[in-house]
Amino acid sequence: MTIPTDLEIARAATLLPIREIAARAGIPEEALEPYGRHKAKVSLDFVAARRAEGQSGKLVLVTGISPTAAGEGKTTTTIGLGDALNSLGARAMIALREPSLGPCFGVKGGATGGGHAQVVPMEEINLHFTGDFHAITSANNLLAAMVDNHLYWGNEQGLDARRVVWRRAVDMNDRALRSVTAALGGVANGFPREDGFDITVASEVMAVFCLSRDLAELQQRLGRIVVGYRRDGSAVTAHDLKADGAMAALLRDALAPNLVQTLAGSPALVHGGPFANIAHGCNSVIATRLALDLADVVVTEAGFGADLGAEKFLDIKCRQAGLSPSACVVVATVRALKMHGGVSKAALGTEDVAAVSRGTANLRRHVENMQKFGLPVVVALNRFTSDTAAEIGAVRDAMRALGVEAILCTHWSDGAEGAADLARAVQALIAGGTADFAPLYNDHLSLAGKIETVAREIYHAASVSIPPPVAAKLRRFEEAGFAHVPVCIAKTQYSFSADPALLGAPEGHVLPLREVRLSAGAGFVVAIAGEIMTMPGLPRRPAAEGIGLDAQGRIDGLF
Amino acid sequence: MTIPTDLEIARAATLLPIREIAARAGIPEEALEPYGRHKAKVSLDFVAARRAEGQSGKLVLVTGISPTAAGEGKTTTTIGLGDALNSLGARAMIALREPSLGPCFGVKGGATGGGHAQVVPMEEINLHFTGDFHAITSANNLLAAMVDNHLYWGNEQGLDARRVVWRRAVDMNDRALRSVTAALGGVANGFPREDGFDITVASEVMAVFCLSRDLAELQQRLGRIVVGYRRDGSAVTAHDLKADGAMAALLRDALAPNLVQTLAGSPALVHGGPFANIAHGCNSVIATRLALDLADVVVTEAGFGADLGAEKFLDIKCRQAGLSPSACVVVATVRALKMHGGVSKAALGTEDVAAVSRGTANLRRHVENMQKFGLPVVVALNRFTSDTAAEIGAVRDAMRALGVEAILCTHWSDGAEGAADLARAVQALIAGGTADFAPLYNDHLSLAGKIETVAREIYHAASVSIPPPVAAKLRRFEEAGFAHVPVCIAKTQYSFSADPALLGAPEGHVLPLREVRLSAGAGFVVAIAGEIMTMPGLPRRPAAEGIGLDAQGRIDGLF
Repeated sequence: MTIPTDLEIARAATLLPIREIAARAGIPEEALEPYGRHKAKVSLDFVAARRAEGQSGKLVLVTGISPTAAGEGKTTTTIGLGDALNSLGARAMIALREPSLGPCFGVKGGATGGGHAQVVPMEEINLHFTGDFHAITSANNLLAAMVDNHLYWGNEQGLDARRVVWRRAVDMNDRALRSVTAALGGVANGFPREDGFDITVASEVMAVFCLSRDLAELQQRLGRIVVGYRRDGSAVTAHDLKADGAMAALLRDALAPNLVQTLAGSPALVHGGPFANIAHGCNSVIATRLALDLADVVVTEAGFGADLGAEKFLDIKCRQAGLSPSACVVVATVRALKMHGGVSKAALGTEDVAAVSRGTANLRRHVENMQKFGLPVVVALNRFTSDTAAEIGAVRDAMRALGVEAILCTHWSDGAEGAADLARAVQALIAGGTADFAPLYNDHLSLAGKIETVAREIYHAASVSIPPPVAAKLRRFEEAGFAHVPVCIAKTQYSFSADPALLGAPEGHVLPLREVRLSAGAGFVVAIAGEIMTMPGLPRRPAAEGIGLDAQGRIDGLF
Repeated sequence: MTIPTDLEIARAATLLPIREIAARAGIPEEALEPYGRHKAKVSLDFVAARRAEGQSGKLVLVTGISPTAAGEGKTTTTIGLGDALNSLGARAMIALREPSLGPCFGVKGGATGGGHAQVVPMEEINLHFTGDFHAITSANNLLAAMVDNHLYWGNEQGLDARRVVWRRAVDMNDRALRSVTAALGGVANGFPREDGFDITVASEVMAVFCLSRDLAELQQRLGRIVVGYRRDGSAVTAHDLKADGAMAALLRDALAPNLVQTLAGSPALVHGGPFANIAHGCNSVIATRLALDLADVVVTEAGFGADLGAEKFLDIKCRQAGLSPSACVVVATVRALKMHGGVSKAALGTEDVAAVSRGTANLRRHVENMQKFGLPVVVALNRFTSDTAAEIGAVRDAMRALGVEAILCTHWSDGAEGAADLARAVQALIAGGTADFAPLYNDHLSLAGKIETVAREIYHAASVSIPPPVAAKLRRFEEAGFAHVPVCIAKTQYSFSADPALLGAPEGHVLPLREVRLSAGAGFVVAIAGEIMTMPGLPRRPAAEGIGLDAQGRIDGLF
């Protein structure tokens, strides 16, 4: 028997009209802006009206161990858990990030879950969806065009062309655009300068979009974006260039959250999708808050492992938006834990209980880290057929020592039924009412102090190495009025340290700060440790080569 | 009394639900993919089914004199005429190009008509609309990324990096991107090379999109796109790089035509929008054919003046798609004719019958040119309050000598009523049945012969200067199997000659061919005379500076 692909499963499903999904979620048809039959935006007027009613559901965060090549299944778990909660009679909604177009054509494939735990229509969500990322790309590039245009027409603001920090964006994996020289070709084309492109999910516009509660806040945040500096070190903002209004106009329709459905018919809001390194890595505040206003339980996901995604979700998004999660799910697989225990990908099929036990060190630290935020935790163990009872037992034993349950999940093959045990455990955590959420550090710590707190408490680093010019830059940010903001640490997702090869639970390493950047619109300072890629490349054989249309005009080869 | 802006008029209108507009046009609700309440795509299945029924309405082309700073009002006339035909009981549809995002933020503003002759919702059509241009930009840039990725991973096809002709695209006025050096920054970023960006409407993907009759043809045409050449001069295509399938997947949903309404409730298909210099300058073949399958009369528009837009509409689009117009409307204004007669913009308010008479030489030649294609012609004279009876009489007299009516139009201020006389004249031309359309030249002429035919017959040039390397390139295109394709001449839109300062009806000039390019996917050879801008810049005070959201979240400052 051949196992059907995600695309085949998604295509075989009968989707409900989106107005029926909306009705399940308590959204009336007149609040919908349909995009085809199975996608809709929920009007911002309705969003504001529901907010005013002051209801609030319980928020469940799904995060994971440090990712490995074995795969963990965080998105499928988020979807499977939401479906299972609904099948148990809870009124649950799911809040997810939108996929980026670039990785669809590279190696990663789509980002809409998998197997029998998917949000659909899969092809449309993975490709253009409702156009939000295109709007974000356009707003980013309008600002870039206005920066160079300002230089061209006399530079009233006195922007130092060598100190422009605003880069262009494209939602594509295109390494050739990482570093370019722009405005070549003579007088008519402007002043030549070094420039580069980031993938759209790495744009500060994406972070601003995802952190804004309404259109007014969106425009204010856009106006605060720093595009560069004058010779005296003072910042030139998007508002100084009068770009914020037009950027907000470009983003206006996009800011309304997108409603879709899972294969099981659960309502899901899929909206926004910032990187989890140089940005905060989770869906929009507007979508999460709307879901909380509508549902009893909201299941949402943070990017990468819990050290990167969950930490930022909690210290940036929850802090800024006043959210307070009730429970946390940490996703792991036996195979991935084996890799953290030193097993190569090729040997994952062979039982190795000792390696699993060693690998649980990574899981254990992520669980303990989540507990430091005051969150009750349950572990979701996504089952593979090669997992043995002894290996699973090793994970369960290790978690039991922390007072945490590890629950086997098979939603990938079984849908909602496969996550029913996990759903019951989550319901028990919520009912227990033990959550006592607080961000890891308070606003009044220095920026360096905030970075050191995360490094010490979450990464278990012995220290942070901050080169003097970087320390001076942090002080300048503080003097410029940004002492109170949280920090957004960009490091490799593969290790607690800045070295991607250090799997498991490394201790005593040094976090080498290389650079800091002010994201004044997003309201955080980015601290970069190691090489962080803000524009991926395509592999030797891009997935794009296998994508095409079949005789019925359906999209083939997307995975 | 203050005159309301286009945006104010558009906002004050009560729009009908798009399914009601669809019903008027004979499109059932199940054939619609709604995008919000007032925009919808018409499914390609329905498009194919209606085609199979073999009906066909009459096609009316709206074109204009050589554009001047005074403005002519071609789009408003297209819309006003469609509205007037419907008010007279004809079943009329309108087919227009989609606006480009870039010019909205520059000087030109939107492209949805004006006054009481607009397609709506104006802000949405002018900004992202249904995302078609974003899909086209993405397909263009996926191919570009795959070109550089191919070079990076070993260059199996043997593409000469110096002979890459495929450029990147962005839907933005951004002069800094006209000429760049890409892939800088070291080994990991690829092989540095000269590159540049065109505005999306100048991309060959746009031309391919607009000339394809269905998805299968779209994918075939995309595959034929030449991205560059090997050292032996042979072409490397998108199909060679296995990019055509993924590009078609990106464009699949976009290829379904967009239905909107005019202020008067006429159904309008607004779909595709290639430049009228290096591409053919009119809306998609799919939209025009669907409109002809549904309506008794279809009013459509070609870009720039008739020498550029209408010539390409007739010699490229009608030739390739098998269309045959029944009548042609040439739009002019007294003010613009005065400028062609030598009056400066500042002096347009003063009566000058002699200047109008001199300026009608431009109108006369465009009318005669349209007659060379076998089309009966009527002139639409868009009335301004400053026009005097003597000036209008001068235009009428000049046209009467050609056996052509010049009809005063006031649809800008009066809506359908203001174009009723024009509509009756168009109905009379159709009823007369005198159209005997044929393209200007046949497929078997040499490429140089085709260029010379257009230059002689349409531009009244004495000759074409073809430098030997350009002539050699034309022969190579012929040898490579592209002898039979039409030519797409790119020159300034402001003059029949290649010199934008030569207004009126210049004679005996030389058309200086500078460059020729093969658009193998679009199926034409581009012949460039003079400097042609494929990436506009922003002005000193971009319109973007005045655009923003008001307290109700509505978009202000768009015009």
